Amino acid sequence: MSEFNTIARPSAHVGKLLENKTLFPDPPTRGPLAQYRKQATIDWRKLKLSFHDETSIELQHRVWDFARKHPLFAHPNQTLTMDEERHLATKRMYVVQNEKMFTISDFLERPDLATIYHQAWIAYEPSMAVKYSLGFGMFPSVIRTLDVGRLDEIVERNEKGEYLGAFGLTEIAHGTNAKGMRTTATYDPTSGEYILNTPDFEAAKCWIGNLGKTCTHVIVYAQLYTADGKHHGLNAFVVPVRDPTTLQAYPGVTVGDLGAKAGLQGVDNGFVMFRQYRIPRDNLLARTGDVNEQGEFVSPFKDPAKRFGASLGALSGGRISICGIANVYLTKAITIALRYSASRKQFGPDDSEEEWPVLEYQSQQFRLFPHLANNTVIRVFNLWFGKAYGDMQLKLLGGENIGATGMEVHALSSAAKPVCTWAARDGVQECREACGGHGYLKLSTIGDLRGNNDPNCTYEGENNVLIQQASNWLLSVRAKGYEKFAEVSPLGSAQFLAQYASLSKRKANWKSPTDAGSIASRS
Amino acid sequence: MSEFNTIARPSAHVGKLLENKTLFPDPPTRGPLAQYRKQATIDWRKLKLSFHDETSIELQHRVWDFARKHPLFAHPNQTLTMDEERHLATKRMYVVQNEKMFTISDFLERPDLATIYHQAWIAYEPSMAVKYSLGFGMFPSVIRTLDVGRLDEIVERNEKGEYLGAFGLTEIAHGTNAKGMRTTATYDPTSGEYILNTPDFEAAKCWIGNLGKTCTHVIVYAQLYTADGKHHGLNAFVVPVRDPTTLQAYPGVTVGDLGAKAGLQGVDNGFVMFRQYRIPRDNLLARTGDVNEQGEFVSPFKDPAKRFGASLGALSGGRISICGIANVYLTKAITIALRYSASRKQFGPDDSEEEWPVLEYQSQQFRLFPHLANNTVIRVFNLWFGKAYGDMQLKLLGGENIGATGMEVHALSSAAKPVCTWAARDGVQECREACGGHGYLKLSTIGDLRGNNDPNCTYEGENNVLIQQASNWLLSVRAKGYEKFAEVSPLGSAQFLAQYASLSKRKANWKSPTDAGSIASRS
Repeated sequence: MSEFNTIARPSAHVGKLLENKTLFPDPPTRGPLAQYRKQATIDWRKLKLSFHDETSIELQHRVWDFARKHPLFAHPNQTLTMDEERHLATKRMYVVQNEKMFTISDFLERPDLATIYHQAWIAYEPSMAVKYSLGFGMFPSVIRTLDVGRLDEIVERNEKGEYLGAFGLTEIAHGTNAKGMRTTATYDPTSGEYILNTPDFEAAKCWIGNLGKTCTHVIVYAQLYTADGKHHGLNAFVVPVRDPTTLQAYPGVTVGDLGAKAGLQGVDNGFVMFRQYRIPRDNLLARTGDVNEQGEFVSPFKDPAKRFGASLGALSGGRISICGIANVYLTKAITIALRYSASRKQFGPDDSEEEWPVLEYQSQQFRLFPHLANNTVIRVFNLWFGKAYGDMQLKLLGGENIGATGMEVHALSSAAKPVCTWAARDGVQECREACGGHGYLKLSTIGDLRGNNDPNCTYEGENNVLIQQASNWLLSVRAKGYEKFAEVSPLGSAQFLAQYASLSKRKANWKSPTDAGSIASRS
Repeated sequence: MSEFNTIARPSAHVGKLLENKTLFPDPPTRGPLAQYRKQATIDWRKLKLSFHDETSIELQHRVWDFARKHPLFAHPNQTLTMDEERHLATKRMYVVQNEKMFTISDFLERPDLATIYHQAWIAYEPSMAVKYSLGFGMFPSVIRTLDVGRLDEIVERNEKGEYLGAFGLTEIAHGTNAKGMRTTATYDPTSGEYILNTPDFEAAKCWIGNLGKTCTHVIVYAQLYTADGKHHGLNAFVVPVRDPTTLQAYPGVTVGDLGAKAGLQGVDNGFVMFRQYRIPRDNLLARTGDVNEQGEFVSPFKDPAKRFGASLGALSGGRISICGIANVYLTKAITIALRYSASRKQFGPDDSEEEWPVLEYQSQQFRLFPHLANNTVIRVFNLWFGKAYGDMQLKLLGGENIGATGMEVHALSSAAKPVCTWAARDGVQECREACGGHGYLKLSTIGDLRGNNDPNCTYEGENNVLIQQASNWLLSVRAKGYEKFAEVSPLGSAQFLAQYASLSKRKANWKSPTDAGSIASRS
């Protein structure tokens, strides 16, 4: 991971950057935090630059300044009903889409900024950001990746804000067991259409973000059957579900909202059932397989398992994105809790009238500092992993063979999502408690951070199941001998296991707290 | 703890009880849970009777049947705003108070039923139950305990529902450090009144349940000063804050709502500030100290620390009550999660068309069963502790010397609240995740259980601070020698530490999983 943060910058330029008051506005010099800021032995500007370059920080500020000034982004001064929250998140989403702060051409120039942009919105308004990234990010991106040039108009009208998308894999009765989905798509050669059908309530697509009230199109994963009765596994279709002008559901489509949740209240998660609902032949995302004009299924993949894997490839990126989102939530919570602890005074030495900030007490430090450290390590990892994933995607788009990297990314993202989202879960909760009653007030926002992080533990692969996926990979490699880890891990995440024999015999050589705290002593 | 569950019941009577379909309605014989119910090797009715006697179960059913049939207790079919939630909880509270299902005379006959009654409501509608127990339970109970016969009218009008009470100790800037409170009450001998004053915003009483919108009276803890300028520590006053007819605040009282929270949205937590606000001399709760007609402070306690302890005695009972509330929340969550796991199917053996209930998978069992076991142990403990505390209270009311029991109850409740509330926190969260996306829906109620349990970790003593209180007691006894534990623990909770020397040398003698699972092997 040593490649991280090697953007070459002449030191004179860095010096000038540090004086840029737009990127680095001076913190307040008064108030309870001032004394702690003065005591700091690190330069927070340099620390920030070690995570993000100036273009990234500029983009963050552009997002936050926009939201701060736009009246629709003002925090409501009373609690909203669920419908009001969804309405507000939708309006905000269209404002952001029309603003075109970060377009596909910006993305092609600097793919890594997509994460920065998304996370800046996650930090400000997560419901809007989730709706936006599903409807204007994941939806066109999956079409671009899996379409064979037949659905460009849908992507264009989506970009114009005329169509809003959603991604529909999960059903009421099946989530983790994706192959068990039961929605069917049967090809009708006489009309050249697919007939979508939901056999019963348990096969309704559900949990789909944007589907509840607002989307016009859904990418639906369905079991494909040809007229000869043959089954060709799960395939993805772009399915129009609502009239873009009226948002009324089309005949044959039963669509609705899943109702209130424990967080992300602005996201209209929904369900949909199809009754013999016909869509054009072109709407199959055919990169991994197609039905030709003769009504036969043809695929470049010989192995159905590999075809299935390729069609679900989007989920690996989703997991990596979630790692970053969880990191943003914990960053916010730990910042709030540390600032609170530096401001909140309680008790003091017996000989003093003045009480001490609770941050001075070891018990408060033991509660918060490990989460701060953990969150920082995870951020470094996420930046590295996001870059490694982006590089792999570019190679894939350029037709390069990525060899073992795909499998390593799958295993590593399966291991990382549980680590990152549970770190946020536990850290946010500790922050809530460390702020006492004040942390329980909605205006502290910590309760919302908890509720918003919560689904991260479940979607794009349930955490406990993902751990098994990562373990399966490790065990399968180990079965071939530890030395194999040198080959199967081009990104380097598991190469150290090739030295398992010697590593497992190593012991800590720390003799004192100073040793333990020193990086140098960790050979 | 061996005294628990020794209510003598002839076995013929028990046999008849078990056939009582009102107390033990037959569970459904169809549906996904039926097969698991059939497999059970225990009789759930007997298990229930080992926790609660028939009078308790009857009372529970009376509460739940009432709520099930009363239109005001129907679950709203849309999300409510904060104001609507508070309005609804208030209306429900008055309905329950007027219903007089459990009165003070019921309490005097069977004090232990108070907990049963309260927990039955907590299980059904926690916001209402919290408001009710603060306003019609804790408020009159503290007055009865600390008044000297001057405020009976307030208690009577409270019982009639004309007055609603609140308990006000915490201030904006002080919670854990209770002695640091800064609200003052200065005695004015010319008028025979106390003048309450809040020096600044940080000294506003805050977080007080019922104070936000609905209460008429608050028990206010304030620093007492006599006209000679002498300070007599924190004392409790019954303070009228709102006109009982209009609910308008009286002149000199600035009172308001603290706003939305991460749970218990129906409880109107509030703040109050006093500007030279006068209340009658009688309104000091004078059991622990009074100002006489000459304007001098007199107290039966010579040691101010002991007086302070006596005046805050109510908080020990609060902690024990919270242990039970947390237990109710986890009981609900674990029941939901286990039933879900028995219904939810995902994957199955390769040779089978049928999928398996996820409860059949070891990973799901490992996630849920420890919380079920933990919750059961905690319930047994809570029942024992509640009874021990009730017995101590009866002795106190009868003027008996309780010796070391008071200190043991303080230490044990300080240790137990963190154990019970964190067990609920972690268990409820695991249940949320174990139910996947369905557990994230508001209608699963698990998110609400989490939000409602959350403040249990903070109020009536912040958990991390309480641990230190319990540790202090253990360390102070140990400093005198382990054999002292036999004397300081009349309830028996710490007597085993007298055998520390031999206990610390014991090793587990289990040789197999069967040994570990057998109670007999644990000598």
